[in-house]
Amino acid sequence: MKQAELERRLESVLREHDDGSDASHDVHHARRVLINAREIAGREGAGDLRLLTAAAYLHDLVNLPKDSPQRAQASQLSAEAAAPILHELGFDDAEISAIQHIIIAHSFSANVMPATPEAKILQDADRMEALGALGIARTFYVAGKLESGLFDGDDPFAANRTPDDKRFAIDHFKVKLLGLAGTMQTAAGRELATERTASMRRYLDELAREIGADNLW
Amino acid sequence: MKQAELERRLESVLREHDDGSDASHDVHHARRVLINAREIAGREGAGDLRLLTAAAYLHDLVNLPKDSPQRAQASQLSAEAAAPILHELGFDDAEISAIQHIIIAHSFSANVMPATPEAKILQDADRMEALGALGIARTFYVAGKLESGLFDGDDPFAANRTPDDKRFAIDHFKVKLLGLAGTMQTAAGRELATERTASMRRYLDELAREIGADNLW
Repeated sequence: MKQAELERRLESVLREHDDGSDASHDVHHARRVLINAREIAGREGAGDLRLLTAAAYLHDLVNLPKDSPQRAQASQLSAEAAAPILHELGFDDAEISAIQHIIIAHSFSANVMPATPEAKILQDADRMEALGALGIARTFYVAGKLESGLFDGDDPFAANRTPDDKRFAIDHFKVKLLGLAGTMQTAAGRELATERTASMRRYLDELAREIGADNLW
Repeated sequence: MKQAELERRLESVLREHDDGSDASHDVHHARRVLINAREIAGREGAGDLRLLTAAAYLHDLVNLPKDSPQRAQASQLSAEAAAPILHELGFDDAEISAIQHIIIAHSFSANVMPATPEAKILQDADRMEALGALGIARTFYVAGKLESGLFDGDDPFAANRTPDDKRFAIDHFKVKLLGLAGTMQTAAGRELATERTASMRRYLDELAREIGADNLW
């Protein structure tokens, strides 16, 4: 099956799998993860594109709410649900189990180390979605949803307190996002993540200037 | 009364006026509006600092929910509530009515043209809070609160649809924020707003690149 045809069929699988949440977001997220994965694979000169394509589209097949007790098993469940789909698409057993490993290992909470080039590439590709301009958008969006504050007016960059991203949106940069580049599995992923981290730092510099503070992060 | 003393007393008025909503945000917003107002006044070589200080702290004294039918009267109500406070602080009747005009005219929805240098400066200073890094943060924060989408995955920059900031967060840049610099009342305000608009455009450029689109705005 040609690459374009494989993508088309995986997209339609994803749309059919709509569980009532935002299927369109899932397809676009999957496409971006695939774009990132191709970029990283190209720079690394590693990674099988068919395996990466399948995993990019199917890695979030089973999506559980943040507060679900099964949440840590979501990537395991996605891998199980992916098997019959992959079989249908003509992947053989060895390929299916390689893709299942990519899917399982992409998630932090599964706590499974990515053991193949493809698993490392996909984990990095997915993690890049949390960074840069998208990461900024998501951080404030989630804060609005949870109605936390934008920042601590008295101590925005937590000079004299522990950063707390449940209370203040921008603390999420310190607590999580600015450190993510250091968790990347591939050199190319680290390089791309470092660029996006620099863009988040520039954003924080501007915000600091506007609110009359110094960016301490 | 010295400037520092005036600010201190206005801050404590604002904190006392806490209606149960986020008083700390109000004080910090007021401080930033005053910083912006001083910057604009300095560049313009116009504007009485005492009047600007009083108006910066008291312009949102009466804050009504977005869906209140009285919302358009909020700046009028703030001006009325400010009078006894200003009297107490030693402002004379002419000054009080000048400050009341600044407060009333700062609001879009009051539909009163700012007629004095101070009123123009304060309107610009307040409007700057919607722009730049703060504007980006607020846009996504509000979208999260209202649970609208981040962007239209199929047509993020509305090439083939009417921008709709109720449905998509980034549409708010097109519908409102990118045009705000053109509504500024002073040359210095326009200059500062144009800088912050350029920073929002850079942000949208990066977001577009990350999601594989072109920034058409």
